[in-house]
Amino acid sequence: MKRRQFLSSAATGAAAAGLAAPAYAQGNRTLTMVTSWGRGLAGVHDSAQYIADSITAMSDGELTVDLRAAGELVGAFENFDAVTAGQADMYHAADYYFTGQHPAFAFFSTVPFGMTAQELNNWYYHGNGQELHQELGAIFGIKPFLVGNTGPQSGGWFNREITGVEDFQGLRFRMPGQGAEVLGKLGASVQNLPGSEVYQALSSGAIDGTEWIGPWADEAAGFHEITKYYYTAGFHEPGPGLTLGVNLSVFEELSPAHQAIIEKASVAANLWTLTLFMKNNAEALNRLRQQGVQILEFPDEVWEAFGTASEEVLQQHTNDPLYASILASYQESMRENSAWIGETERVYAQQRDRILGL
Amino acid sequence: MKRRQFLSSAATGAAAAGLAAPAYAQGNRTLTMVTSWGRGLAGVHDSAQYIADSITAMSDGELTVDLRAAGELVGAFENFDAVTAGQADMYHAADYYFTGQHPAFAFFSTVPFGMTAQELNNWYYHGNGQELHQELGAIFGIKPFLVGNTGPQSGGWFNREITGVEDFQGLRFRMPGQGAEVLGKLGASVQNLPGSEVYQALSSGAIDGTEWIGPWADEAAGFHEITKYYYTAGFHEPGPGLTLGVNLSVFEELSPAHQAIIEKASVAANLWTLTLFMKNNAEALNRLRQQGVQILEFPDEVWEAFGTASEEVLQQHTNDPLYASILASYQESMRENSAWIGETERVYAQQRDRILGL
Repeated sequence: MKRRQFLSSAATGAAAAGLAAPAYAQGNRTLTMVTSWGRGLAGVHDSAQYIADSITAMSDGELTVDLRAAGELVGAFENFDAVTAGQADMYHAADYYFTGQHPAFAFFSTVPFGMTAQELNNWYYHGNGQELHQELGAIFGIKPFLVGNTGPQSGGWFNREITGVEDFQGLRFRMPGQGAEVLGKLGASVQNLPGSEVYQALSSGAIDGTEWIGPWADEAAGFHEITKYYYTAGFHEPGPGLTLGVNLSVFEELSPAHQAIIEKASVAANLWTLTLFMKNNAEALNRLRQQGVQILEFPDEVWEAFGTASEEVLQQHTNDPLYASILASYQESMRENSAWIGETERVYAQQRDRILGL
Repeated sequence: MKRRQFLSSAATGAAAAGLAAPAYAQGNRTLTMVTSWGRGLAGVHDSAQYIADSITAMSDGELTVDLRAAGELVGAFENFDAVTAGQADMYHAADYYFTGQHPAFAFFSTVPFGMTAQELNNWYYHGNGQELHQELGAIFGIKPFLVGNTGPQSGGWFNREITGVEDFQGLRFRMPGQGAEVLGKLGASVQNLPGSEVYQALSSGAIDGTEWIGPWADEAAGFHEITKYYYTAGFHEPGPGLTLGVNLSVFEELSPAHQAIIEKASVAANLWTLTLFMKNNAEALNRLRQQGVQILEFPDEVWEAFGTASEEVLQQHTNDPLYASILASYQESMRENSAWIGETERVYAQQRDRILGL
């Protein structure tokens, strides 16, 4: 006998005994989750499925999640508004899709020259990050939780080697979001082509290069069939977080146990998703290398130009007080955390990889 | 009314109706957790408390955890055997304490020149790591889950600068475990003093140096009052995992929902604990620096000697087939994962820190 059946019988028994059923014991509940991902999209849809399954398993089916991929209920970028409006109970997305709603949402996904996944999580759970995320979400009637991270995204594919900043002058490049603004400042002609058009545009020479996601997705897209110049480290998305945004009223109606299940399932999904991307990107990078792809690094002066332009882009919205206070908290935490990571883990891993030939 | 009370009433109702209560619905259950940590020990006791609280909250009190710190029920290193014997239901510890039970337990905490926290988690959740951990645990009647990580441990405090491998000849140094074996191969006289005696030994000159944990704990121990030479990056414990080991029979008796709660709470605790250490180590390192502590790196040739000796130590137990197969899986995963991390996140963070002056 499943506990949910037991509870149904139990509820009847309790009613018969004249006990008032508590508000959160009114039988099973289905939560509709709308996502930004096509059904089956590697990594990100997996993350949504993981948290949906976790919630159902831990609540013994008292909560089930009706997972609606992009386009099944609302479009890929309409899920935030759908949750705000109560049309759906929760969304699974990357919050930098919602900078139109508020520019500070970018910090809970990623910003150019911003935090790595580890740093973002340090800030989120033990700095002020989660509190600020929830303060921002509450404006829109949303209770947000970090629920995944793709790890660092690749710098991208180019039809030639990049030797200096001048190579970006007039470069026709595909990149969305704040990264595109940065490249624009370097003189590039940046376009945000839909994924379905990128391969053809690169192949025909309509664009000179593109960033996409990381080796796992890039290999599937087939860009290595067109060019072998792959810049693995990029400035634009150093560790994009994914968010589960729950309708605030729906969340507050849940029992404390169900709230705890959603909260802890989110933390678990965060680590599970990050490690999924890291592992699959690592394997795909090795396959790409075996197929003759050249792994390249941008020259120092290019990194410096990326850094200067990124700071300008981040400063654009500081007239909004909440944006300014989140930026300050974010940058202070990044400054603090980077030193310890840089002086222990990075030194260690560099020496180890050098000596073991990894 | 709390759901647990509701369930009690409900169970009575069900019994009255002549329904057979399922095995896992027999009321609330208390699980005894024994740990290797003194009550309140920063970071590690916090991790044990976090998972205990998570289990209780998510199960709505159907499961409660009776957390017994080191010495309260059994000694700090006796908890593994206590769980095997059924004297306690679960332990919270670092599995390298149990290499006496089986040498391969070291891999699920840390080994010299081994994985960082990120790499360990990649292997654990998406390589073969968790399956191998559970195969090893099952020999002892234990169902293990990674439940935390301290992040990289510091190389340690020295009474003088280390300029070459010869400086380890005769050096009187405090370090436990496999790291001590490595330093022994370099000619050091290694002692494993209990924590309570280390400050006095360093202060009196009875030892020339000590490793401890990381800035958070090292600052509390006061070693910077004695010496200012601090090697932040170490070879010996690059990312020690913490384990929740549940008595296998106890685990198998739990309902699928309660099993899911323990499993997901462990994943959540893993990330929560790692970020707790990273954040507090970062803050403490900055305070130590402000107090004049010199942050140093071992020279390349010292790292090379660490590497060679570490590999020798890891090869000692390869006559055991399970040890050998776990070592092979571990090293293959480390080789695969390190390239992607090194060529994206490390390049990025190095450039960013250089340019922003972090």
